[in-house]
Amino acid sequence: MFGVILAGGSGSRLWPLSRELYPKQLLNLYAEKSLLQSTFERLNKFIPAENIISVANTKHQANVKMQLGKLSENSIILSEPISKNTAPAIALSVKYLIENNKSDETVLVVPSDLLIEDNEKFIQTIKEAQPLVDKGYIVTFGIKPNYPETGFGYICADNNIVKSFTEKPDKQTAEEYIKKSNYFWNSGIFMFKASVMMKEFDKYCPEISAIINKINCSDKNIPFTEFEKMPSISIDYAVMEKSDNIAMVELKSNWKDLGSWKSIYEVSPKDKNNNVFVGHVIDKDSKNSFVYASSKLVATIGLEDTVVIETEDAILACKKDHTEDVKQIYETLKEQHDDTQKVHKTVYRPWGFYTVIAEGKGFQTKIIHVNPGQQLSVQSHNHRSEHWVMLSGMAKVVLEGEDHILSPGHSIDIPVKAIHSLQNPFEEDLEIIEVQKGDILSEDDIIRYEDIYGRV
Amino acid sequence: MFGVILAGGSGSRLWPLSRELYPKQLLNLYAEKSLLQSTFERLNKFIPAENIISVANTKHQANVKMQLGKLSENSIILSEPISKNTAPAIALSVKYLIENNKSDETVLVVPSDLLIEDNEKFIQTIKEAQPLVDKGYIVTFGIKPNYPETGFGYICADNNIVKSFTEKPDKQTAEEYIKKSNYFWNSGIFMFKASVMMKEFDKYCPEISAIINKINCSDKNIPFTEFEKMPSISIDYAVMEKSDNIAMVELKSNWKDLGSWKSIYEVSPKDKNNNVFVGHVIDKDSKNSFVYASSKLVATIGLEDTVVIETEDAILACKKDHTEDVKQIYETLKEQHDDTQKVHKTVYRPWGFYTVIAEGKGFQTKIIHVNPGQQLSVQSHNHRSEHWVMLSGMAKVVLEGEDHILSPGHSIDIPVKAIHSLQNPFEEDLEIIEVQKGDILSEDDIIRYEDIYGRV
Repeated sequence: MFGVILAGGSGSRLWPLSRELYPKQLLNLYAEKSLLQSTFERLNKFIPAENIISVANTKHQANVKMQLGKLSENSIILSEPISKNTAPAIALSVKYLIENNKSDETVLVVPSDLLIEDNEKFIQTIKEAQPLVDKGYIVTFGIKPNYPETGFGYICADNNIVKSFTEKPDKQTAEEYIKKSNYFWNSGIFMFKASVMMKEFDKYCPEISAIINKINCSDKNIPFTEFEKMPSISIDYAVMEKSDNIAMVELKSNWKDLGSWKSIYEVSPKDKNNNVFVGHVIDKDSKNSFVYASSKLVATIGLEDTVVIETEDAILACKKDHTEDVKQIYETLKEQHDDTQKVHKTVYRPWGFYTVIAEGKGFQTKIIHVNPGQQLSVQSHNHRSEHWVMLSGMAKVVLEGEDHILSPGHSIDIPVKAIHSLQNPFEEDLEIIEVQKGDILSEDDIIRYEDIYGRV
Repeated sequence: MFGVILAGGSGSRLWPLSRELYPKQLLNLYAEKSLLQSTFERLNKFIPAENIISVANTKHQANVKMQLGKLSENSIILSEPISKNTAPAIALSVKYLIENNKSDETVLVVPSDLLIEDNEKFIQTIKEAQPLVDKGYIVTFGIKPNYPETGFGYICADNNIVKSFTEKPDKQTAEEYIKKSNYFWNSGIFMFKASVMMKEFDKYCPEISAIINKINCSDKNIPFTEFEKMPSISIDYAVMEKSDNIAMVELKSNWKDLGSWKSIYEVSPKDKNNNVFVGHVIDKDSKNSFVYASSKLVATIGLEDTVVIETEDAILACKKDHTEDVKQIYETLKEQHDDTQKVHKTVYRPWGFYTVIAEGKGFQTKIIHVNPGQQLSVQSHNHRSEHWVMLSGMAKVVLEGEDHILSPGHSIDIPVKAIHSLQNPFEEDLEIIEVQKGDILSEDDIIRYEDIYGRV
């Protein structure tokens, strides 16, 4: 069996903790592990790492690789050059398996932002689904609804055979559904044979299958120009709602879609006033509220049903029933080209990470963290000088061909146009403060010299 | 006539914008001027600057001096070594006037945190009070109440003669008061002859008068040990409620006590949904709310009657009717020795200001701003090295007796124990980034060399 984790989400609804470049599946919301890592571990209980495929957007690839790399070096990461909803992501992984002679393998597709509390029951459900997959069905998993949720899709099924799918219903319809015994929430989890799904794509969504069949999905760099042409549609819409080959198995494990601050609040442990406080929070008389302080003190007084999320560069204060509207704030910021929707002040790179701690006219200051054994590319800048002060660990700085070994308290100036590289060939983490000074301070002002020095 | 501005407030109720070391009278809440500066200018319309005395705590002296210095170099600042409520502050200024042979002068005492909209009416009221002062009365100013406020004291007066004072009443009592025509809010503004007030202190509050008569109040450094012994009581309690020598004049100008976030909200211009938004705020569907973003983006959705105050290191989110409880948060922080109640990350000094932009194990980073013509003391540190990168303006750095003139993009390292001084003898503002590095990073690790070099 192969597992496919859909990790392409944009994270707009958990802003400001999630960002375009750091979506919710990468966040540690509770535990030490991110949602992506938890999902991986859940599958890894019954699927070997080398059979687990994560499909993520290219721009998240470095982070996905780093997070999964901590659990196993063997899993497969497929990069979508542009996010296109679930149908293209599933087509990509199915085609990858077919290219690798795994057409007859069972594929289990799971989103990366679900909370499944009882993994044993989940595994049991998967086992129940296997005979249906073997018979050639695409199996979807349904959850018995316990209240008339209008934010989910519903499945109508009798004796494992799906009769119909419904998109998010209105309140009245949802209330009718939960009175009946054959309506289920659509969990977003699917199971099928690779060859079966590809046939359904050919039949019901030839726009996708025509393009995916032209692409070599085993290639590290999938061509943007081809992928871009695919329609941005969900697997429900592209295949499930059209095919007459769909079965359903009830998933009896506790299941939560962690799609909004309200849903995060609901699954979190609460104090006696039904509050959830994370981080440095001082409260007086608040009720039913969720306060998340990531870097500063947040003091709250007399709040009710309110969500306050504090991050380094943006704060959200929101009525709990309005958390779905966070998406609109995110879209507004995007329209205004406000980077607050896109990046955190901390940016992760394969060699470590950096945090912008101050910006102003003509300067920018970062704390740069280089992991042991890592180095930044050999580079120069046409418009800025850089000034480095060592904080902890040891650094090797190559400046105009000369090596400097620096310890904490040392500093070095990198003049405009000087060719330089920051390296940490030692065993400890390296942390430095960088002050950039110049009239133009752009990440684009960089000339890389990998060809000359043969380094990355 | 002399004016006395009581500028000793601690600023607990406007936290986190006000701090123990930067109380509300120093804040620019609306205008370009702080409450203290606005109060000074209001008095300066009819009292010459050299007759205006500001009484402030020693720990605020540098800021009070800087703010008032921008308006006039001639006004008088008296420093209380410890804040002791209004009675000791008024006794201090009265004694100062007596020492300077001004016993017979009229004194007008005003708090520094009032908003008086119509200064012409205020001046007119002062003129009406003068004959009563000349007759030997202590005149208090009353405001005709227009709603049953329970947060103010009330004065009962007939034909300018005060019958009684009432501390903050309960709701029912306040409602009875506003039905009567002879009850007024106590404005906290007083007018009297210096000699008259001193006699009342002698008679009704000998604990204060005994101590104040031992102190030389014209001395720049009033002894802490003496001042500390004074009781911490209000002028109302010490004198006004006891004396039979009190008159009242009605103040007809618009008057607001800016004591809480709710009162600041009330005096601020509002949008069509009755919101007040200051700074970078993006809102959707909020009502009757006050959002103040000082350094970051604050996004709000669906809030009602809520106050959100964002500062560099602390955020307050509070129901508008609970803003009086902010004081309790402030006290909690004080008990926990959390400096968030005490200082901002920006600290003002006579030579300019600095902002701590990042702190971590073994390092601290500041942006230091030196005003033209100013310099920091000649100093050295036993436990830290300092690394300076010039951002804007020009600097003169004296390092181990040697002068260095540095322009933007230059940097210099100050080793542990090296004697150094940062100076800006030029006409432009100077801004630098300082990285401090060392195992002990304390403001106390400083040796000053003013004696050797003859500089401050």
